[in-house]
Amino acid sequence: MNICRTKQQLKLAVKEAKGQGKTIGFVPTMGYLHEGHASLLRAAREENDIVVLSIFVNPMQFGPNEDLDRYPRDEQRDVALAAQCGTDIVFIPSVQEMYPSKPLTSIKVAEVSERLCGASRPGHFDGVGLVVSKLFHLVEPTRAYFGLKDAQQVAVIEQMVADLDMNVEIVPCPIVREPDGLALSSRNVYLSAIQRSEATVLSESLSELANALKLNGAMTPAQCIELVTDNIKEKTSGDIDYVELLEYPALMPVPAHEGLLDALADRKFIVALAVRFGSTRLIDNALFHVEEVIERV
Amino acid sequence: MNICRTKQQLKLAVKEAKGQGKTIGFVPTMGYLHEGHASLLRAAREENDIVVLSIFVNPMQFGPNEDLDRYPRDEQRDVALAAQCGTDIVFIPSVQEMYPSKPLTSIKVAEVSERLCGASRPGHFDGVGLVVSKLFHLVEPTRAYFGLKDAQQVAVIEQMVADLDMNVEIVPCPIVREPDGLALSSRNVYLSAIQRSEATVLSESLSELANALKLNGAMTPAQCIELVTDNIKEKTSGDIDYVELLEYPALMPVPAHEGLLDALADRKFIVALAVRFGSTRLIDNALFHVEEVIERV
Repeated sequence: MNICRTKQQLKLAVKEAKGQGKTIGFVPTMGYLHEGHASLLRAAREENDIVVLSIFVNPMQFGPNEDLDRYPRDEQRDVALAAQCGTDIVFIPSVQEMYPSKPLTSIKVAEVSERLCGASRPGHFDGVGLVVSKLFHLVEPTRAYFGLKDAQQVAVIEQMVADLDMNVEIVPCPIVREPDGLALSSRNVYLSAIQRSEATVLSESLSELANALKLNGAMTPAQCIELVTDNIKEKTSGDIDYVELLEYPALMPVPAHEGLLDALADRKFIVALAVRFGSTRLIDNALFHVEEVIERV
Repeated sequence: MNICRTKQQLKLAVKEAKGQGKTIGFVPTMGYLHEGHASLLRAAREENDIVVLSIFVNPMQFGPNEDLDRYPRDEQRDVALAAQCGTDIVFIPSVQEMYPSKPLTSIKVAEVSERLCGASRPGHFDGVGLVVSKLFHLVEPTRAYFGLKDAQQVAVIEQMVADLDMNVEIVPCPIVREPDGLALSSRNVYLSAIQRSEATVLSESLSELANALKLNGAMTPAQCIELVTDNIKEKTSGDIDYVELLEYPALMPVPAHEGLLDALADRKFIVALAVRFGSTRLIDNALFHVEEVIERV
């Protein structure tokens, strides 16, 4: 496995692979890898000649009061997991290497990046767009793999790729969960035992909503949100940052007064939530395809 | 010569060239080609295996009251000139092909894009950044050629390429002028006979400044600007949009009270101007390397 710490090393490795006509599968991460990341690496391994993993805790996507400094890191374990998953190249740049001077260029994706985490974390998706754009230019991937836990991130990146005619296929991959339903996240390590046990309510409430929708496709967006919100409020000590129901991937509101199945016809919608347990902010979501809900009714 | 009207056709042609390990020289233009464009094509021809020209009048870089609708076009002549210069691929997309839906993604280059034409034409360089970024992703050039008449455009694109780690070498090429000094521009065709004859004062005043600086390197920025401004005001009916002296390529002001050679040490500066003759806006500039001025003193 080739560990590159500079752009120059990475570019050389990419050039060699490209020169041989090889396809490149790319998994960009902030490290502290878990089974969710591993599932992305395995998908990349299956579909490409070369698998590139990047590990970079990108300061540009953290707000001034966020957890940049205490974001968990364990390079040795990450590298071992990468090797297990058949990774060929790991790119681990320093902040100085990625940003040798303050970037003057900014990338903004309107509409898609404005709600949910975009509203709670101003500038977050600008930072994501910038670093993903840089990494795409450095890695020149055939396909790039992103987890749907960050469903808004997937939507923002897909929009950016389409608008900028970037030559890469975005592959969204399903959320990987603990046996009790908690979505895997590098931040789960911050949770106390009590918070950890309460946090299962997030995925449980989304499952409950899915069941309710199967029984009653005429539920309104407000009723869906209420079901999830009430559950979290009743069963946890968490502070709700948001619970929202939006069309996906446009991430625009659904007409409020209509039943969901009528309002959305053959489109997708997402119920996304962010909840704070102490200083730890967790996110989760469920994507619904209206046809599937109807079929299951 | 391969004329591509769709992204798909272009991508196929690029993929074939890349697969053979060929280098690609790229000249993005808005068409109505003149000797300035031809000089870029010839430079690209000399340094690369494949030469790609794009012709696209990009609506996103025109303001609502600008000359998008009357921007001159002559595809047949452009294609003939491209062939003469040894171009391999010409990309001529429609607006619908380049922007199948309204782009939500925007690219902004702070500081460098804020003065000169960036101040006179709000949003202009956002439009340039967007379309150049799209074209770079579609063409995947080894080198891209830009004329220094649009010196700010060169600076903005170089900054964007550096910040986004784009894998392309930007090659700035000298301004091409008419025998009487007027910088070539597709917009020169709009000038009346009288305006055309007055317009030579733009380059003449820049030459006069160059001579003055050789005699007196202690001139202040204000004195330099005054020399050019007075010349234009006295000898033409043109309306000055701006005459500015800035560091290049940062495009930031030079300390106002010092002599230029002291203030700038070993750096470059630009004197750039925009002047309206009727509804036709012309730009010109001169780049000065402080060492060279000193040598010539």
